Amino acid sequence: MDILVVGSVALDTVKTPFGHAEEILGGSASYFSVAASYFTSVSLIAVVGEDFPDRHVAFFQQKGIDTSGLQRSRGRTFRWRGEYEFDLNTAKTLETQLNVFADFSPKIRNENRAPQYLFLANIDPGLQREVLAQMSQRPRVVGCDTMNYSIHHEHKSLERTLSLIDILIINDAETRELAGKSNIIQAARSIISQGPKVVVVKRGEYGALMIGAGPVFGVPAFPMEDVIDPTGAGDSFAGGFLGYLAATGASFEDDALRKAVVFGTVMASFDVSALGLQRLGELTYTEIETRYREFRTLTRFEDV
Amino acid sequence: MDILVVGSVALDTVKTPFGHAEEILGGSASYFSVAASYFTSVSLIAVVGEDFPDRHVAFFQQKGIDTSGLQRSRGRTFRWRGEYEFDLNTAKTLETQLNVFADFSPKIRNENRAPQYLFLANIDPGLQREVLAQMSQRPRVVGCDTMNYSIHHEHKSLERTLSLIDILIINDAETRELAGKSNIIQAARSIISQGPKVVVVKRGEYGALMIGAGPVFGVPAFPMEDVIDPTGAGDSFAGGFLGYLAATGASFEDDALRKAVVFGTVMASFDVSALGLQRLGELTYTEIETRYREFRTLTRFEDV
Repeated sequence: MDILVVGSVALDTVKTPFGHAEEILGGSASYFSVAASYFTSVSLIAVVGEDFPDRHVAFFQQKGIDTSGLQRSRGRTFRWRGEYEFDLNTAKTLETQLNVFADFSPKIRNENRAPQYLFLANIDPGLQREVLAQMSQRPRVVGCDTMNYSIHHEHKSLERTLSLIDILIINDAETRELAGKSNIIQAARSIISQGPKVVVVKRGEYGALMIGAGPVFGVPAFPMEDVIDPTGAGDSFAGGFLGYLAATGASFEDDALRKAVVFGTVMASFDVSALGLQRLGELTYTEIETRYREFRTLTRFEDV
Repeated sequence: MDILVVGSVALDTVKTPFGHAEEILGGSASYFSVAASYFTSVSLIAVVGEDFPDRHVAFFQQKGIDTSGLQRSRGRTFRWRGEYEFDLNTAKTLETQLNVFADFSPKIRNENRAPQYLFLANIDPGLQREVLAQMSQRPRVVGCDTMNYSIHHEHKSLERTLSLIDILIINDAETRELAGKSNIIQAARSIISQGPKVVVVKRGEYGALMIGAGPVFGVPAFPMEDVIDPTGAGDSFAGGFLGYLAATGASFEDDALRKAVVFGTVMASFDVSALGLQRLGELTYTEIETRYREFRTLTRFEDV
């Protein structure tokens, strides 16, 4: 079944101890939609400027991504410049130029108003609700991410969004900050009491936890000896997660959610192994399945 | 089969956001031997002062731990005072009084010189080698921990010890510092090139990784909603790990090592749920097996 994703498309300049790239394709919706494109059909809603290279649009289309909702506005494309030091867990943002993204007001065309699966990437929580309000029917699953800025400066608005969504996919520190609790399980349960059925906590190199109605599910990250660029790992995770659910038509069945977390982990591991979308953009589904099986080997142990 | 453990026995004063205790039984060898005692017979080699309460000796004996190697020296027992803030991952040491531990020189009596399993808890690496040198035959498995101080101030000595042991059980930050590499898999492989067959990386609330000859093994931590006191979690992990190996007579078989990591994780989860040894000291083996099965539920997912 199909996914609609709303988020940012950007031009990133990234420096890590292992590489450097200027004005490459980035943004939450880019990573999400490329990761999800291996599982199902994806429609992308975002805004770019007049300077956005046509080759990036062609790249999306080559991945089978519907770009009819990629608005082009007068002005420059959203730009992000960041750096990672030897501890690759945290990006240092050196510069953010919102440009056309500052006035982004997602207009969903009629053909895109009834997706089965909707992902609201980390944009302003008010915009996230505007997108939801334009749906002609409630999607089967609404996934959502958020960001530090919204937690601290748009808390009330974020709470309203949380009351409307199904699955929050969020990082470790944000989970604690959003809930105001240091214990991660307590924090996730507190967020669930505000609306979402499921909270998936992304923990970077430490893996992921899923907290919902059933028993907690936990996985390590896929062990990577060569992490080149962690940019987009969280969005690639979300793309693999929701992509798998959509491909199978699943919603909140425990077994499907668990497999979705593993597919999310697999997609994030491909993402970090090269700069930008270099590796994530050139996968085959066989490679994805092979890594899923390797992940089974990583986590396998016998019964007591 | 039997385990000999050499390490510290201390009186701890601990403050966490959820509790406070003065002069309770602590030290690496205490946590290790209590955790291991549920699996096999354990002999404890350590030193205490004249002020060490008899009730703690009685407690060890009640757990079936052989205390004939617990030397009593003139002076005061090793004391540690520490505090945890809301992020329970890192202890802040407020005071360390080595006292009789400063002159600790482990004398292994004849009866204890041929253990099948030996664990060298985090004492001076020179002392660790002195213990090894007193063995009348090479133990089947020699496990070892180390500490920040040794990594930074006794590096050459630590390298000599590493060349003699089989399994290093060490925390995340120490692994990176010891190897001088930020990537945890690269760091563990570098340590393995110095001697140990297996490195088990303890990552606190994020779980554990095991790197050895076979495929990497990774587990999350057991999710605990109420972490009261993390003191001793790493030593409880090591006790469960080596205790399980000794109970089954295993050494470096991949399946056994993986189950040992899970038992280590289980013992650490019990440890952190109460101050000091309160919870770890009063377990039944049935409770341990039940949590092992719960851990299976935590990590279970279907094949692709």
